[in-house]
Amino acid sequence: MKKQIIISIFSVAAILVGAAVLFGFSNDEVKYPEGYRNWTHVKTLILEKGHPLYDAFGGIHHIYANKTALEGYKAGNKFKDGSVIVFDLLETVSADNAVAEGNRKVVGVMEKNSKKYRDTGGWGFEAFKGDTRERVVKNMEGDCFSCHLSQKDKDYVFSEYRK
Amino acid sequence: MKKQIIISIFSVAAILVGAAVLFGFSNDEVKYPEGYRNWTHVKTLILEKGHPLYDAFGGIHHIYANKTALEGYKAGNKFKDGSVIVFDLLETVSADNAVAEGNRKVVGVMEKNSKKYRDTGGWGFEAFKGDTRERVVKNMEGDCFSCHLSQKDKDYVFSEYRK
Repeated sequence: MKKQIIISIFSVAAILVGAAVLFGFSNDEVKYPEGYRNWTHVKTLILEKGHPLYDAFGGIHHIYANKTALEGYKAGNKFKDGSVIVFDLLETVSADNAVAEGNRKVVGVMEKNSKKYRDTGGWGFEAFKGDTRERVVKNMEGDCFSCHLSQKDKDYVFSEYRK
Repeated sequence: MKKQIIISIFSVAAILVGAAVLFGFSNDEVKYPEGYRNWTHVKTLILEKGHPLYDAFGGIHHIYANKTALEGYKAGNKFKDGSVIVFDLLETVSADNAVAEGNRKVVGVMEKNSKKYRDTGGWGFEAFKGDTRERVVKNMEGDCFSCHLSQKDKDYVFSEYRK
């Protein structure tokens, strides 16, 4: 009897593992965008004190696109699955009538996967604190998508490619 | 007699053309950096009114590096021949506590070729007006190198790679 129970437990475990592999019980987390500093620089914007988004996004930010995302920008913001866009936010350091880049505040990421992220316009959202891999986004919909929703006509992406 | 003179002229012309091909009588002009917008973005700086270089370089500039130049930056500003660095200068457009990128003012280029440009630290300098191919630099030494000379310890390059 004991032997039968053990066999049953193993069988159930095997079925579960098999199902996980078969149906791709993959992690829905957006990956850290390794190597993004070598991707194409899309554009840059500085938000200063007094801007409504200053508390969250004050500083200088650069947008970078992987190859698939770049094609999407050039097609007029129509992005295919596999597109990854990075929002690289740095502090600004003002001195002697020059504004330089300071420490990294956050690395924001949008990753297109229309099946995985169907509830948020096909985009997965994440942000990593400073130069770490510490995840910041608690709720993609509330923290990110609710604002990106206003850009529905541009596939939920605020930026456009600056030539 | 007349025939001989014509033959002689053709002979001399042929020798000159041959010598030009053989010894690479190539153009010393720095080429327009086609495709630089897909190169690695090195860093960004904004020069505001009141900065001593404002008249020449006021606005927001991005530095881009081709692969060879990127290796040079990462080696601590030691650049090999073939390195090309672009200084992409745009107007700034300030409104509602945000500073955005405006029209392109100039595309500056440094191209490393230690033989061709031995009089200017191994670097050829050029600048192209706005979005055109119109050349701006009249004299590499006076217009560019005289100022870059101050950065001799950094291979005459002001910028450093911002991670």
